[in-house]
Amino acid sequence: MARRSRHIITGMALLASAASPAGAQQPPVRSPEVHADGRVTVRLRAPNAQAVIFASDGAPPAPMVRDSAGDWSYTTQPLTPDIYTYTFRVDGVSIPDPQNSEMKPVFRMSLGQSLLHVPGPDSLSWEVRDVPHGSITEHFYASDVVGDRRNYYVYTPPNYDPRRAERYPVLYLLHGLSDDASGWVRAGRANVILDNLIADRRALPMVVVMPLGYGAPQILDGFYWGRQIDSALWRQNTTRFNDALLSEVIPQVERRYHVTTARSGRAIAGLSMGGGQSLYTGLNNLDRFAYIGAFSSVTTINGQAYNAVYPAVNQGINSRLKLLWIGIGRDDGLHAENVRLRNWLRSKNVSFDWMETAGGHAWPVWRRYLTDFLPRLFR
Amino acid sequence: MARRSRHIITGMALLASAASPAGAQQPPVRSPEVHADGRVTVRLRAPNAQAVIFASDGAPPAPMVRDSAGDWSYTTQPLTPDIYTYTFRVDGVSIPDPQNSEMKPVFRMSLGQSLLHVPGPDSLSWEVRDVPHGSITEHFYASDVVGDRRNYYVYTPPNYDPRRAERYPVLYLLHGLSDDASGWVRAGRANVILDNLIADRRALPMVVVMPLGYGAPQILDGFYWGRQIDSALWRQNTTRFNDALLSEVIPQVERRYHVTTARSGRAIAGLSMGGGQSLYTGLNNLDRFAYIGAFSSVTTINGQAYNAVYPAVNQGINSRLKLLWIGIGRDDGLHAENVRLRNWLRSKNVSFDWMETAGGHAWPVWRRYLTDFLPRLFR
Repeated sequence: MARRSRHIITGMALLASAASPAGAQQPPVRSPEVHADGRVTVRLRAPNAQAVIFASDGAPPAPMVRDSAGDWSYTTQPLTPDIYTYTFRVDGVSIPDPQNSEMKPVFRMSLGQSLLHVPGPDSLSWEVRDVPHGSITEHFYASDVVGDRRNYYVYTPPNYDPRRAERYPVLYLLHGLSDDASGWVRAGRANVILDNLIADRRALPMVVVMPLGYGAPQILDGFYWGRQIDSALWRQNTTRFNDALLSEVIPQVERRYHVTTARSGRAIAGLSMGGGQSLYTGLNNLDRFAYIGAFSSVTTINGQAYNAVYPAVNQGINSRLKLLWIGIGRDDGLHAENVRLRNWLRSKNVSFDWMETAGGHAWPVWRRYLTDFLPRLFR
Repeated sequence: MARRSRHIITGMALLASAASPAGAQQPPVRSPEVHADGRVTVRLRAPNAQAVIFASDGAPPAPMVRDSAGDWSYTTQPLTPDIYTYTFRVDGVSIPDPQNSEMKPVFRMSLGQSLLHVPGPDSLSWEVRDVPHGSITEHFYASDVVGDRRNYYVYTPPNYDPRRAERYPVLYLLHGLSDDASGWVRAGRANVILDNLIADRRALPMVVVMPLGYGAPQILDGFYWGRQIDSALWRQNTTRFNDALLSEVIPQVERRYHVTTARSGRAIAGLSMGGGQSLYTGLNNLDRFAYIGAFSSVTTINGQAYNAVYPAVNQGINSRLKLLWIGIGRDDGLHAENVRLRNWLRSKNVSFDWMETAGGHAWPVWRRYLTDFLPRLFR
């Protein structure tokens, strides 16, 4: 027995050195640590750094303090329960928290930002509760429209039944610039929000499709490297995504899932870039979509006048459009252009819901927008 | 037009500052850059670091070189096509590459290691090819056995048909210590390997279930913080996982998927911790499993003698066991104990496949083991 125990310990030690990201001789720091009162302590081991700043959308930027061993730490004031993002700025260079496995995903080019979950009561729609959970399926396909290999995710509600008499309604839910197709799940917790709203009978059971939103993925080359995005490329990003969605993703979804093909059972919504895509694809395809949601949107695809981007928009669409929901935060850099869109829609006598809210261009806003939007669908 | 264009540019600039992980004024470094000849250049911006080391399972550790701007870089010799892991050791502290979005996932406690894909020919089973692709579904449930909320992933093969006359065979595929349930997909590329082998008719279409493998997740508290794992806890980790798999995961899978419930259509395999779990659960439940795969395994659950851990093992099981496949790398710290297991199985006159291969305790070995194992199933 003693001999075998030694072998186990040897094996474990070897595994530890193989598996430990740090390969460290000393225990790693623990970060983030969320205290019962909502304060958060973050920690980073960086013995030779000159200055480390905690940068978050949940708290003001703050210098972290170094201890004698070279571990930096900072404790926030109590934070309102929510899910924030943060990075450490180490001598001017931002990195995610190496000890935190929860990340806001970034498409291809970097690790992105760490997620900071300050838990709250069950009344917050993104808190996981003991309710039935839907599932999330990742599909892979080669896009002829875009010319690449790509993926999309599909949420199916709890107890999804492909033999149910009534086909399910379906929401196409689009991410923002720099996100990947998992953004609405990993950062937005769309599946958790749906589970909760469905359990509370505030939303109908529905299928939610989250496609990769880049019609011209090369826009990211400029974006990530700090160059200006070419406006013709931005237009192509919108129109090719439109084409890929309509001719590739939707047919695949309708073949694979028990969803309705009636416009009254189809919605499209998105955030930022995806909000603009929802407006463009939705308002130009009212034969396919009856519900449109635009969250903190880029409202025009390349600086064109709204009349040119949305030529079909006039008072006549009110009878077909069951919902046009537009939300924008007062601190969002896109606030002014959303106000312009609002004024233009009013000038056309189009009916829409206008949600001017607190907040900026960030996930805490978008989780709340989705929570407000979902109960209005398919009624 | 000019006015609207300015607005777009303003909006984009705001988005850039919101979305950029660096919030950087200067363009980020590009890393990793894989050259056509297989050399790889990695880069890290760390202006005040004293020493940065590139640490990988694909190349010897190497000091990186700082340029005048504070960017560190290193270029490897040409690497054999494969998918490696690496970290940067910055003044003794290991971090993943902040510019690389591809990671080997680590359960809960840290970001883990960056993945480095040196592309190779289509003959490598993990290269994505233009073949039909299966899908991956993430399921969520509350485990009464373990007492937590957890997930599992299910691969369904291309053109999976729940109305097919013949039910699909099913493989339960288990991850290693520190991995999460996505490990076999994100680092192991199990879905890609299956797509390719199925397209080449080397493997039968099958369903593959990848559950979270911790029966006692608290073993990780000690493991991550460098403490020794308590052997009673290690045993509980194995037995409770066994119970959760048999009484929770398998019944859910058999309710949700069109899979056979015959033992001749069920396999269990895993790596490291998951290899030991496959041996324990498989060899003690031959009424349920006919195929067992043990990749680089921890072979005994808490230092117990093999007779005590696998009491049913004797010559009589040969007629029921269609395959017992044991693989171990000659450079693996677990090599010696796998040799002991081999000798014990021989002493019992049990038939098994013994694969002693090159390599250590790492994903390049496990992708190859899976590629060898899958074609032998369900024939």
